Amino acid sequence: MANLSQNQNVVDMKRARQLPTVDSKKLSIFLWGETEWEARQRILSILSNDPIFDKSRRPFLTRTQLYTRGLAMMSRIHELTEQHQWSASDAALAFKVLDEPLPIQLHMAAFEPVLKSQGSPELHAKYAALVAHRAILGCYLQTELAHGTNVAALETTATYLPATREFELHTPTPTAAKWWIGALGRTATHGVVQARLVLPSSRDAGPHLFFVQLRSLEDHRTLPGITVGDIGPKAMGGYAAVDNGFARFERVRIPKEQMLSAFAGVTDEGEYVRPPHAKLSYGGVEVRLSLALESATIAIRYATVRRQGTKGEDGLEQQVITYPSVYHRLLPILARAYVFILLGRNLSTAFTALLARLSTGDTSLLPAMHATTAGLKVLASTAAIADLETARRSMGGHGFSAFAGVGRLYADYVAAATYEGDNFVLDAQVVRAALKAFARAASSTPAQGAELAPNEAYLRWLTDPNPDAGVNAGHSVSTARWGNPRRVVEMLERRAACMVRERAAHAADPDASMDQRVARAVTDAFVAAQVDEVIDGLEGSVGGKEAVVLRKLYTLHLLTAVESGLTDVLSFGLLGEAGAAGDPSRGLRVAIKRLCEELLPEAIGLSDGFGFSDWELDSALGVYDGNAYETLYKMAELEPLNQSEIPDGYERYIKPMLERGQRLASAKL
Amino acid sequence: MANLSQNQNVVDMKRARQLPTVDSKKLSIFLWGETEWEARQRILSILSNDPIFDKSRRPFLTRTQLYTRGLAMMSRIHELTEQHQWSASDAALAFKVLDEPLPIQLHMAAFEPVLKSQGSPELHAKYAALVAHRAILGCYLQTELAHGTNVAALETTATYLPATREFELHTPTPTAAKWWIGALGRTATHGVVQARLVLPSSRDAGPHLFFVQLRSLEDHRTLPGITVGDIGPKAMGGYAAVDNGFARFERVRIPKEQMLSAFAGVTDEGEYVRPPHAKLSYGGVEVRLSLALESATIAIRYATVRRQGTKGEDGLEQQVITYPSVYHRLLPILARAYVFILLGRNLSTAFTALLARLSTGDTSLLPAMHATTAGLKVLASTAAIADLETARRSMGGHGFSAFAGVGRLYADYVAAATYEGDNFVLDAQVVRAALKAFARAASSTPAQGAELAPNEAYLRWLTDPNPDAGVNAGHSVSTARWGNPRRVVEMLERRAACMVRERAAHAADPDASMDQRVARAVTDAFVAAQVDEVIDGLEGSVGGKEAVVLRKLYTLHLLTAVESGLTDVLSFGLLGEAGAAGDPSRGLRVAIKRLCEELLPEAIGLSDGFGFSDWELDSALGVYDGNAYETLYKMAELEPLNQSEIPDGYERYIKPMLERGQRLASAKL
Repeated sequence: MANLSQNQNVVDMKRARQLPTVDSKKLSIFLWGETEWEARQRILSILSNDPIFDKSRRPFLTRTQLYTRGLAMMSRIHELTEQHQWSASDAALAFKVLDEPLPIQLHMAAFEPVLKSQGSPELHAKYAALVAHRAILGCYLQTELAHGTNVAALETTATYLPATREFELHTPTPTAAKWWIGALGRTATHGVVQARLVLPSSRDAGPHLFFVQLRSLEDHRTLPGITVGDIGPKAMGGYAAVDNGFARFERVRIPKEQMLSAFAGVTDEGEYVRPPHAKLSYGGVEVRLSLALESATIAIRYATVRRQGTKGEDGLEQQVITYPSVYHRLLPILARAYVFILLGRNLSTAFTALLARLSTGDTSLLPAMHATTAGLKVLASTAAIADLETARRSMGGHGFSAFAGVGRLYADYVAAATYEGDNFVLDAQVVRAALKAFARAASSTPAQGAELAPNEAYLRWLTDPNPDAGVNAGHSVSTARWGNPRRVVEMLERRAACMVRERAAHAADPDASMDQRVARAVTDAFVAAQVDEVIDGLEGSVGGKEAVVLRKLYTLHLLTAVESGLTDVLSFGLLGEAGAAGDPSRGLRVAIKRLCEELLPEAIGLSDGFGFSDWELDSALGVYDGNAYETLYKMAELEPLNQSEIPDGYERYIKPMLERGQRLASAKL
Repeated sequence: MANLSQNQNVVDMKRARQLPTVDSKKLSIFLWGETEWEARQRILSILSNDPIFDKSRRPFLTRTQLYTRGLAMMSRIHELTEQHQWSASDAALAFKVLDEPLPIQLHMAAFEPVLKSQGSPELHAKYAALVAHRAILGCYLQTELAHGTNVAALETTATYLPATREFELHTPTPTAAKWWIGALGRTATHGVVQARLVLPSSRDAGPHLFFVQLRSLEDHRTLPGITVGDIGPKAMGGYAAVDNGFARFERVRIPKEQMLSAFAGVTDEGEYVRPPHAKLSYGGVEVRLSLALESATIAIRYATVRRQGTKGEDGLEQQVITYPSVYHRLLPILARAYVFILLGRNLSTAFTALLARLSTGDTSLLPAMHATTAGLKVLASTAAIADLETARRSMGGHGFSAFAGVGRLYADYVAAATYEGDNFVLDAQVVRAALKAFARAASSTPAQGAELAPNEAYLRWLTDPNPDAGVNAGHSVSTARWGNPRRVVEMLERRAACMVRERAAHAADPDASMDQRVARAVTDAFVAAQVDEVIDGLEGSVGGKEAVVLRKLYTLHLLTAVESGLTDVLSFGLLGEAGAAGDPSRGLRVAIKRLCEELLPEAIGLSDGFGFSDWELDSALGVYDGNAYETLYKMAELEPLNQSEIPDGYERYIKPMLERGQRLASAKL
C-alpha cells in the first residue's frame, strides 16, 4: 500500500487547505478563548502520547474491558493531575478531551456540584476535600425503575426518626429501585440519593437529597442493607465504559447531618424547615456538543477527499463536497456548531450571574433561566443527534464502518434526547413559560413592552404597529431580502410570536404536536437574537477575513433555521402568498444554496478551526492529512477476525454444512 | 421481586387486551396470508425452543463470538431444513424470523439470484444444485474501497485472454479493493465479482459479472492470488455477525465460462456480444421492514404499561400512551407499518410480472419499475430508520437500554440509507424519471392522458380542468374534509404534480434539496394511490370490525403523509391562503389527533396483529404480558460486570486513586 501515501486523497486535502481565506488558528482562539486553547494543547500532547489513552484496540474490546480501561484512564488522569499540578479546570479539560463518557464524570458533573450547592457547612467541612481529591467517588441517585423526569413521583423514602436523629432510607417497591445511575454499578463509594422525606407526622414532604456511603473504603464491598448492580449494556454500545447501576435500600440508616440541608431541613424533633424557593434545587444542564463538532470535521474532511460520479476536466471524478446534496447537508451543521459553541459560552456567563443572585436569596432570574435552558437543551440535543447521523450518512457506505468514528459518537450521544429531562417533557415546560409571558404581554400596553425578558423579546412583534410587514414583502426569486441577518431574525421572532398566539387561542385543544413546534419556534427566536448580536460584534471580536466569512456562516444558520421552520412561516403568511407565482420559499432556498457555494472553499478552514487532533477524532475518514483509505486498511488489520485465516467456527459449522450440501446436491443429480 | 408478577404492568396489559374490537389473529392473516402465517408459527416453535437460537447471552458477546454464533445458527437451519423437509421458502423464512443479519443471507439474497438470472445454462448445470444446497457458499463482490453506488466507476478489471480462453481478474489500485462485501471476510467459498470487462482490442466494456472461487473446499484457505480479510466492526455494533470483507485480486485467472453471460458475453476471439438492454443487470431491492414492525410493537406495549405524570381517579399515574405527544408519535408508525407490508406484497407481484416479461425479451416495464423501486427504497428506509429511533425515544430513558431491544434493530438497519443505492443518489434517479414523464405529459393532449404509467398517474392533475380545486377549499377548523381518503390522495397527487412542474421550471438551477423533496412527493403520491385501493378493498379482503378500524389506520397514514409534506402543500396553496384566519394546517392536525384518539383502544390489537413472539422481539419492554420491569431485572442479572462484586480494576485503579486522594486531602487540612 506504499503508493497510497502519495495518493489523491492526500493531494486533495493539501489543495483544500490552500483555499480558505480564514486562519484556522485564529478561529480556534475565537471559539475557545486563548486560555482554554493553550491548556487544551498542553493536555492533549500529554494524553495522546500516553499508552493508557491509546485508542487503536478500543473497537474490539468487550464492555467489561472498556469499563476497566475507563478506570485506568481515570486513575491516570488523577496521577497526571498531581504530577503536572493541573488545576481543577485542567483536570476537567483532560476528561473533556477524551471522546468517551466515564464513571468519574458523574462525580464531577453531578455528585460534587450538588453536594457543594446544597450540602450544609458541616457536611462540607467533613467531605469537601475528600470529594475534591477523589478520596471518595460519588454518584447521584435520582432516576428510578419506574420514574425518571417526573421527580415528584419518585418512590424511595427517607423517614426521619427523632429518637436516634437518623433518616431511614428505604426502597418500598421493586419499581422504586434506583436505576440508570452512572458510576453506581461497580465504581462509586458514596452517593447523593433523591428520596421522599417522610416526617414523624407521617407528612410526605416530597423528594429531598441525602448523602449516603454505598461501599466500604477498605475493600469496596457494598455496605449492609444496600443491593447494587450494573443495569447492563446500553443501546448501540453507547456509554460502554460507564457502569450505570441500580440500587435498593433495605431500611438503611444515616445520621441526620447527611441530609443536604442548605435550603431545606428538619429540626431534631422532625419539623420541616421550608426552602425559600421550590425550584432552587434546579441544577445546570450541560449538553456535550463536542461530538457534533467532531462529526462535522470528519464528514467535511472525507467529503473533500472522496471523489465520486461525474468526471471533470482533470479526468478525476468530482469531489463529493461539491455536490449540492452534500454541502447542503454539511455546511449548515458547521454553522450550527459555531452557533452552539457561542451559545454555550453565553449560557455559562448567565449561569454565573444567576448563582451570584441566588446566593443573595434573589430567585427572580430563575424561571426565565429554567425556560431558556429547557428550550436550549431540547434544541441543541435534537440538532446534535440529527447532525451526527446526517454527517454519518453523508459519508455513504463507509459512514457505517466503526472506523469512521461517528457511529460511536452517536451511540454515546443519542441518550441526550431522553436524559436530564425528556425532550418532550421539556417542550411542555417551554410552552407553559411562553404562554405566561404571552398573557402578560397581551394584557400590558405597548409602553410596558420593555418588561419582556430577553427570552420573551420576540413577543414585541405582537404589539408591532405593522404586524403584517412580513406578509406583503413579496417573494420574487431575488435572494436580496435574505442577505440582511436582522430581517431574518425578525422573521424568526414573528414566527414565534404567531405560534404562541395560536397556541393560546387553542389552549383547550392544541393539536398533538403543537407544543413541540411552539417550543422550537420560541427557542429558535431566542437563539437567532443571540446570533444577531454575535454577527454585530464580529468586527471587534475576530475581525479581518474571518469576520467576513463568519458573518456568512452565522447568516447561513439563520436561513436554515427559517428553512426548517418553513411550515410555520408559510402557515402564518410570513413569506407572502402562495400560488400561481410558484413556490414562495424558492428565494430562501436559493439564497441558502448561494451562501453554501460561497462558503465551500472555507469549509476545511472552518472545520480545522475546531482544532481537533487525529487522536481526538479517532476516525479513518477524518484524518487531518486526508489519507482516509489507507487508514481504513490499517485499522482493519487489527480486527480480531483477521488474526487467523480459518475462522473458529469452520470445523464445527461451515465444513459440515458444505459436506451436507455436497451430499444433498449429489443425491439430486 | 415475587410481587412483580402480579404487578400493575401485567394488570394494565390484560386490560388493554380487552379493549380492541379487532381480532389480532385475523389481522395477522390479513397481513401475512394464511400460508405464510402458518409456516411462520411452525418454524418459530422449532427455532425458539432450540438452544442454538437462545438470545439471553447475546448482549454480552464479542463480535467474534457473535460471528461464530451466526455460523452455528446457519448450520443448524441447514440441518433443520433437511430434517423437517423444509421448502426453500420455509428455509428463507427461518432466516427471516431471526432478528439479525447473517453471512448466509448474502448467499441467498445476492449470490444465488444473480447467478440464476445472469449465469449461462452451462454455469447453471455445473453449480445450481451446489448453490441451492449450500455445498458452496457465495458472496457478491460489487462495492470497492473508493466506489459504491456509482457502479460505472468500479476499477477492478477482468481482461479477456483469447489464447487461453480465460479472464484475468485484477485489482489495479489500492482503492479498487472490493470492500464491504458481506460473507467475504471469513465465510464465503465463492463469489460473483463485478469487474470492468477489458477486451483484446483494449476496449473497456464496463462492469460485468464473473463467477470466482475464493477459498479451498478442502481446508477453507484463500486461493492463490487472492487477499481477503474482514473490514472490521460496523458503527454502533450493527451487522456484528456478518463478516463484511475486502478482497484484492492479483491477476487471478478464471475460465471463460465463468463470465455470467446470459445477457452479455465475449466470443472466443474476444468480440463483445451486446446486452439487449443496458439496465437488465438491475436486481431487486429488498428492504427489511420487519424491524420497524418490531419496534412499533415494543414501543406501543411499553407505552401501555408505563405510567407517568398526572394521577387519575384511580390514584394511578396516566398510561403514557394516552399522552398526545406519545400517541402522535407511535400510531402513525403503526399505520406506516401496515402500509409498507401491503406495498411489499404489491411490489413482489409486480416483480413477478416484470420477470415474466423480461424472459420474453420485453423490457418495457423496466424503467418505470426502476423509478418506482428507487423511490420506495428511499421512502421505506428513511421512514423505517426514523420510526425505529422515534419508537426508541418514546420509551424515555429505558429506550437507551440494550434490553429495550430497539437500539440493536437500529444499528442493524441504519445502513439501509446508504447501501443498495445511497438514498440521495436514488432520489436523483426518481427525479429524472419524473421529469421525463412530465415532459411527455406536458406535450400530450388531455385525451392522451391515459398513457400515464401508474407511477406517473399523479401528473393527470396538470391537465385537470380545475387545477385550483384544492386552493379554494377553505380551511375552517372543521375536520370533515379530512375524512375522505380519496380527497387526501388527490391532495398528495396535486402536490407531486406541482413539485415536478416547479422542478422542471427551475431545471437550470434547482435549489440544493429540491430533488429530495420532489422524489418524496412523487413517491408519496404513488403510495397514496395504492393505499386508496387497499382502503377500497377492505370490505372484501378483511371485512367486519377489522375493515372499519383499518380504514381509519390507513387514513391516518394518508393524513400524516400530508402533514410531513406540509411545507410543499402550503407553498403551492393547496390548503388555502394563510393569514389572519389562523394556521390553515390546524384542521389537518386536529383531524390527526381525533383519528389517533379513535385508534387508541385498538393499538394493542393492531400491534399484536404483526404476530411477534417474545423470542422474536427479545425486548424487556415489549414482552407480551407487559411485565417490563421484572424482565429488565432478569436481563440485568446476566450482565458480566455483575458476576463479581468487586470489579477487575479495583485493586489496580480504584484503590490507588482513593488512597492518593486521601493523602492529598490530608495534606490540605
